[in-house]
Amino acid sequence: MFNHPTRRTTLLGLTAAIGAFPRIGPAFGQTDPLPSWNDGPAKQAIVSFVTRVTTQGGPDFVPVEQRIATFDNDGTLWSEQPVYFQFAYALDRIRVMSKDHPDWKDKQPYKAVLEGDHATLAALGDKGTMELMAATHTGMTVDAFGKDVADWMRTARHPRFNRPYSDLVYQPMLELLAYLRANGFKAFIVSGGGVEFMRPWVEKIYGIPPEQVVGSSGKVEYRLVGDKPELLKLSQIEFVDDGPGKPAGINRFIGRRPVFAAGNSDGDLQMLQWTTLNDGPNFAMIVHHTDAAREWAYDRTSSIGKLDKALDEAPKRGWLVVDMKSDWKVIYPFQK
Amino acid sequence: MFNHPTRRTTLLGLTAAIGAFPRIGPAFGQTDPLPSWNDGPAKQAIVSFVTRVTTQGGPDFVPVEQRIATFDNDGTLWSEQPVYFQFAYALDRIRVMSKDHPDWKDKQPYKAVLEGDHATLAALGDKGTMELMAATHTGMTVDAFGKDVADWMRTARHPRFNRPYSDLVYQPMLELLAYLRANGFKAFIVSGGGVEFMRPWVEKIYGIPPEQVVGSSGKVEYRLVGDKPELLKLSQIEFVDDGPGKPAGINRFIGRRPVFAAGNSDGDLQMLQWTTLNDGPNFAMIVHHTDAAREWAYDRTSSIGKLDKALDEAPKRGWLVVDMKSDWKVIYPFQK
Repeated sequence: MFNHPTRRTTLLGLTAAIGAFPRIGPAFGQTDPLPSWNDGPAKQAIVSFVTRVTTQGGPDFVPVEQRIATFDNDGTLWSEQPVYFQFAYALDRIRVMSKDHPDWKDKQPYKAVLEGDHATLAALGDKGTMELMAATHTGMTVDAFGKDVADWMRTARHPRFNRPYSDLVYQPMLELLAYLRANGFKAFIVSGGGVEFMRPWVEKIYGIPPEQVVGSSGKVEYRLVGDKPELLKLSQIEFVDDGPGKPAGINRFIGRRPVFAAGNSDGDLQMLQWTTLNDGPNFAMIVHHTDAAREWAYDRTSSIGKLDKALDEAPKRGWLVVDMKSDWKVIYPFQK
Repeated sequence: MFNHPTRRTTLLGLTAAIGAFPRIGPAFGQTDPLPSWNDGPAKQAIVSFVTRVTTQGGPDFVPVEQRIATFDNDGTLWSEQPVYFQFAYALDRIRVMSKDHPDWKDKQPYKAVLEGDHATLAALGDKGTMELMAATHTGMTVDAFGKDVADWMRTARHPRFNRPYSDLVYQPMLELLAYLRANGFKAFIVSGGGVEFMRPWVEKIYGIPPEQVVGSSGKVEYRLVGDKPELLKLSQIEFVDDGPGKPAGINRFIGRRPVFAAGNSDGDLQMLQWTTLNDGPNFAMIVHHTDAAREWAYDRTSSIGKLDKALDEAPKRGWLVVDMKSDWKVIYPFQK
């Protein structure tokens, strides 16, 4: 994703004439690290921040070990419509598991899943949703669950794009992750999603290792079965990494305050506050879903990824609001 | 700590004659990475494991990203006598706080702390201990607590050695951490101690960054006070990272199974099992406290750092039992 052959070829061929080139943004003299971002204030703000904090001797220099960046996942690194992809996994899993649970065909909320009864599913509420999540996310070992998630990620297809869910990651955000990494940042995912659901695939898809994933979690129980140790996933919730839980999760797992944070919904509000209402250089951005043609458009009234308070707070706090429609040249890697 | 001037000088001066040198252990041809370890089976076992898993193309090669090492802290990386150092912090803190709590001089368990009544303190039990921990570890922000711990680490003195507590780290273990790091391992602390207590000093003392510390934790509450966000430490316990909690903590925070683990007590038993009862190359070691003259000698009947079941299990599992007295040339850096 760092290839930008035209400019690179030109520069390599004409280094003697370099002084005659117009200055094209701060990345002049290098390949563009963010080729899927349209030139404009959003891209400029990001490049300017990264340049400032990595300029040794500059007033805003941040030592490498303090370059912590935190990214929400759903709606920030990949899509979250028409349902959170983890919930799509749960629904698929209910269908697979139903062959061992004949009673489910007459029992809600399972019945609605098996019949594709979207109206009932949409009206499930927390209790019904949690029941489906518990049925599909607990009672097995962590290893078995991870394998099943990895299988699903390989085989399941997103209903709108008929592609693996992991194809619905945002190309501009992949470039941003790589750009930050190349500049000494350590990027963490800080998601309301389940940590066990993300770990099997984040390294391959985002280049973020499993130990840099903070998420919601259920309790696990350690058991030694013969000479084989297991961690059994229990139904009790351990930690909800959303809203005010995000600064708590950042503190618990990372133990440093981020200097860069990206989110897309009110569930990220406190993470953005925690990152920016702080001395020293920092940066926060909101991915605003404005592109119904290429992705989805939603914000203040959406049941998924509701963005209301954080959108109001953004100008006051100086948070960058990224307009997907106008700021992003492409949305998904397969559109390149 | 990698300096071994005699051998290095000799080798640099006599590279042509190198074939004539006797083979001095597996590190021949390099400076000794573990100079504070006596030559013998313990040192050999460690070097042999690291050599095997880092030999590209070898049958036991482990890719860099999977080189996860987990270390218990109390009794494994630093001393834990006559009381856990975190408890020594709590006792010192009670003394400082007592000027704002005049009632404590007549109220247990505070009275015993203020009077230095060791018999009562030793008989406190979980309830009294937890009361002292809650009084000193909760009700303030995470930032304020971290600053206080850092101050204490600078100013408090260990009663036996009259030195800062952080001087009582084990020189051979510092060398082991550096050796593993130099060989691409990522080392995590996985301690029953409080994660907030360790984070302020682990990077400086061990070279382990705060985001690689797994520990016990209390709940925190996020608050926005005016435009200043805070994380308030609450008295509810969130997670106990001890015994079977260690594999759970490793899974929660790291999300990979370690290939190397070090502990010293039965509180590490399940971590050692989780690391070694597994396919693929792995290594576990127990620091056995056998040196009453230079440190302390204790194991099966000790109230702190009891080592009983894990010591019985070690031979069956092939865990290395390090004898501090005979395997370590020096214990603390100040003894070098």
